[in-house]
Parts: sequence; structure tokens; C-alpha cells
Amino acid sequence: MRSKKKLSSRINDGLAGENEIIERIIKHYAFPHPMLKKGIGDDAAVWLAPGAREFQLVATDMLVEEVDFRREWITPRELGRKAIAVNLSDLGAMGARPRFFTVSLGMPKNVTNRRLRGFYDGLTSCGFEHGAVLAGGDLSGADKITISITVLGESENRKILYRSGGRPGDLLYVTGTLGKSAAGLKLLQQGITRSRSVYMREALCAHRTPEPRCAVGQWLAQSGNVRCMMDISDGLSSDLLRMCAASGVDAEISAEKIPVFAESASWGCDPLELALSGGEDYELLFAVPRAKKHFLENMPTGFPPVAHIGTMLEGNGKVWIAGGGKKRRRLPVKGFDHFS
Amino acid sequence: MRSKKKLSSRINDGLAGENEIIERIIKHYAFPHPMLKKGIGDDAAVWLAPGAREFQLVATDMLVEEVDFRREWITPRELGRKAIAVNLSDLGAMGARPRFFTVSLGMPKNVTNRRLRGFYDGLTSCGFEHGAVLAGGDLSGADKITISITVLGESENRKILYRSGGRPGDLLYVTGTLGKSAAGLKLLQQGITRSRSVYMREALCAHRTPEPRCAVGQWLAQSGNVRCMMDISDGLSSDLLRMCAASGVDAEISAEKIPVFAESASWGCDPLELALSGGEDYELLFAVPRAKKHFLENMPTGFPPVAHIGTMLEGNGKVWIAGGGKKRRRLPVKGFDHFS
Repeated sequence: MRSKKKLSSRINDGLAGENEIIERIIKHYAFPHPMLKKGIGDDAAVWLAPGAREFQLVATDMLVEEVDFRREWITPRELGRKAIAVNLSDLGAMGARPRFFTVSLGMPKNVTNRRLRGFYDGLTSCGFEHGAVLAGGDLSGADKITISITVLGESENRKILYRSGGRPGDLLYVTGTLGKSAAGLKLLQQGITRSRSVYMREALCAHRTPEPRCAVGQWLAQSGNVRCMMDISDGLSSDLLRMCAASGVDAEISAEKIPVFAESASWGCDPLELALSGGEDYELLFAVPRAKKHFLENMPTGFPPVAHIGTMLEGNGKVWIAGGGKKRRRLPVKGFDHFS
Repeated sequence: MRSKKKLSSRINDGLAGENEIIERIIKHYAFPHPMLKKGIGDDAAVWLAPGAREFQLVATDMLVEEVDFRREWITPRELGRKAIAVNLSDLGAMGARPRFFTVSLGMPKNVTNRRLRGFYDGLTSCGFEHGAVLAGGDLSGADKITISITVLGESENRKILYRSGGRPGDLLYVTGTLGKSAAGLKLLQQGITRSRSVYMREALCAHRTPEPRCAVGQWLAQSGNVRCMMDISDGLSSDLLRMCAASGVDAEISAEKIPVFAESASWGCDPLELALSGGEDYELLFAVPRAKKHFLENMPTGFPPVAHIGTMLEGNGKVWIAGGGKKRRRLPVKGFDHFS
């Protein structure tokens, strides 16, 4: 859902979007710590405990009813799966292994025991599938269902991928299909919560229960051939911009190469538009040096397809798009910036 | 505030209180994990990363507007301090050192940039005073201010204190004064948000900006003389019951020995009642073998006073109270069980 944009003007007094708010928090409130290898500003924070063989990672994400989901659009079990999946995606995006998670849950009066069980069932089963167990939490009253999850993970062989590290000439890739979750959201907004069309079901499923790319993220990190990586949670246009800013490069992508969900055109969507700015896909975006690209041919079966969408260029954080029947142009940022 | 009790009947279908909900979550959803030393059911979860010299700890707590606080009763800066303090208290209660924290913040539209800065100022300054730096977070829209914080800490010399471990004959102690925060809440409920009375100010301050007992908790853990420890967040009556249940003992406390905030009687409070069931004191409750009790005389100056309030007995989780002008009786549980 993510209608968070409305917040913007008040919170940052009309100055800028989420990136700038985060920049400000980093500037004013992110003190260094000898154990902390990476603090605010990436998908997860990374620290090294004295003596530990591996890095420890922590990421957190909050879902709020009426902002991120509606009860009539998702079952408690699906909500549980989605809530942990969006967090696990942050660990997958660093190439880390999920270990534990905590859940703070704010609940309105009309949440029944049965719904609560469904939620915890979905939560813990999805966590378990990716190697993470419930380690703690908090319960509170609230007007709207509010779910705040924190996931803890570990590196493998100390190989962690950040958003920074990309260099001019690196090839850009994404996993899976982009815009499918947003196409599912469009269906829900049209009142279509179930369908006999396989494509509609696929879109609804992508929106309700995204699959975190932990296994492929770990494989990419272990390969040693990837320069930088992040997950696409707010839309390719805004997330690629963040990666370019962190890496200090520009990027050019080709509209024809983006793995759009073309079937959504049949229910009135613009597949390219949704791929660029739909959000909630939770696919991986990563950069590979041109000379190393062949390692992707050895990707294990069962992993999602990987598409080459563009190239990093000399620059300072701009993103260009070519093709799509128009000439090369700056890619407008219309992803889910919560505050723009 | 904590008017969370109203939730109860729906969530657990009339069966029991918070303890039972947590028991159920433990029973159904807490899978073991080779790295996890302590999962749900204590103040913090504890794990040992391979090779690490120390245990890592994680605790989480959520504050919701209109449930845990009201905007007209607390400044953003105080709210920031309180939000991190109640989390740090969980680490202090295990004797751990705070290291990092993450903050997920749900914000209504009418939160201004100035208030947001005040909140982060309070949050990070209180964290910094106790050794913890901001490492990550999430921002979201919400109807009510919702703050979910996760704190990460480390043991020192692997000395961690749990709720379990108390034995019959152990002496029970608490730090500081109990019922002061609840006395401050009574003032706020009467519309008194500031006062020239030093006692009223003290009570308001205890409610708005509780001081987490991290330093004394660490000292107690390092002493090696403490059997079990927890923080008193929901009131002595319910928290002592939890400690007794975890330790498999009964306890008897003496009404006269409880360090009540006697001055609250002047604004219509029952100081003993508030000490037993007021909640939000964030003082420490701990048990010491009788033969070791003298180590408390060597407590560094600057630490809060410590009061001997009773004794652990053979039993299975019951709490008795003597004195207070009545004969020895079972202590009724009226603390802030969120769901009873």
C-alpha cells in the first residue's frame, strides 16, 4: 500500500524526501562505535563482536495497518509471512544468514486469539524456512495493528555486500520480476481479492507474501564476484538512485531489459511504470564487474532468473534510462519515498 | 499509562493474562537454535556467536501513543529518553552492557520536524549516556505515534543474570523507590503537568524519564553474588511472581520493608498500593544468598539505595506479603499485566 508520501511536508518541513531525512539522522545522531562496521544507511547494520568469527547484522522494519496493509486484503497468516519477509529481505540483500528475530506487536481490541495464532504461524514458519527463530518480543495495545520486527543475522566467511562499492563499467542485474507486487496492489484497490486468472493470482501472491531472496543473496555474496547489492523495496528508480549515491557513480538502464510483469497490462497497469516505481518487490539489485559476469551462468537451479538491466557509469549519483520508445533521459524518481 | 488491560478478553479468549499468552507463544513458536542461549521469557534474549568472547543480547519494547503516553504529558525529548530507557532497563536487568539500538517510528502527519529532532535528541543522548549508539531504524506513517526500539548489548566476562536461579532462603532486594512513576502518572491524570512541590516534580520526572539501572545491574552481575535479577516494569506484585515462577520458588515480602514513595499520599495515592502494582518503575529486583549479602555494603557511591524486601521460600511460584497492619496473605497480582 505505502501511501506514506503524504507525510512529507510536515516532517521535513518541505525540504526533501526520505533520503534527506535519513541523511540528517546520520549527520546528527549516528555516532561511531568501535564495534560497529556499518550503521544507518544500508539495508542492515553490521558489527563485529570481539573474538567472533563472523559479522553480526541487524535490520528492522515496521508495518502499520492502513499504511502498509489492510485487514480485508490479507489473512493474518499472510501478514505474518510478509512482516518477517520484508525484514529477511534486508539480510538477504547483504548476503547474510538470518538467525533470530524479535516482534513487537501493537494490537487493537478486536484482534481475536485465532487471528493472533494465524499471524504467529505465518511469522514463525517463514522465519524458520530461512533459518531464523523467534527470540523475543513485546505486546501492546494499539488502535491499528502495528508490527515492528527486528531480524538478526550473521555473515558467512565475513562476506557482506553493501550498497556502496559499485564502479563505472559494472553491469547491473536484478532478480525476478519487477512491478508484480504493485500490480497485485492495483487489483486489491479495484476490489479484486481473488481471481481465477493465474497471472492475477501471481500478482496478488507477490503482494501478499513476497519471497525474501536470502538464498540467492548469500550465493551472490559468497561468489566474491559482486561489488554491491541491495533489495528493491521502494521501486527500482529510487533504490537504484540510492545505490548510485552510495557508490558514487551514475547508472544507465535500458527499458527493454527490465523484467517487467507484462501481464498486468491486461488489468490496466503500465508494467514498466510499476517496475520502476511500484515498490514492494523485494528483489535484489546488484552490480558485477564486466569481466566476472559469466559466474551468473553457474547459478544453481531453483534460484529466480537474473536480468542484466544496465551499466554503472562515471558520475555522482544520477540514473538514466534508454529505450521504451523515447530518447535517453534522466529517470524520474517516483518510487516509494515515504516522505517525498 | 498502560491501560492495556482492556485487550485481554479478546486476545486470549478469556483464558488468562500476559504470562499465559507468553507461555503459549513459547510453547508453540519458540524453536530452539544452537546459538540461542535464552529465547523468549526473560528481559532479553541471549546468544553466543561462534568464536565470540561475550554473549550478545537483544531486547525490544514498543510504546504507543494513548496507551503508553499522551503527547500533552511529555515533551518529544522526554519521550525519546523514556523510549530508549525502558529498553536499556531490560539489558541492565541482565547485567549487560548496551551497545547499539534501532528505532522504528510510526508518525502521524502532524509531527513536525522540530518535534522529531527533540525525540531523536532525547533518544540518542540517553542511549549515549549508557554506551549505546543508534545503528538503524525505519520510518513509517501511522495514526498514533508508535515507537518500537530494539537494543543490543553484550555481557561482561559472560556474566548474565536471568529471572531463574533464585533458591529458597535467598534474600530479595530492590533498587530505588517503588511507586514513584505511578504517583507521577496520577498527577498527570489529575491535570498536574508541572509543580513547585519537589516531591511532585520527582514523581513526574520518574514517570517521564525513568533512569535505566544499567550501571548497578552490571555491578551486581559482575559481583558474582546475585542469583537472579529482572527489572520491575509492570509492578512488584506481578514481576516478583514472574521471578518466582521462573525460579521455582515462593517468596514472602514485608510491607514495611518496601521502599515506597510515601510523599504520594499527600496527593491522594496509596504509596504501598502503587509500589506493588503501579508499574513503570524500571528498578531492579534481585535475589542474593543470605551468606553473600554483605557484598552490598561495598556498593559504589552514586548507585541507588538498595532495600531488602523479603525472602525466597520453598514453593512453586506463590508470593506472600506480611505486615501493613494485616496478617500474612497471598499478594494479589494487580500489576500491569497488559492482558488480564
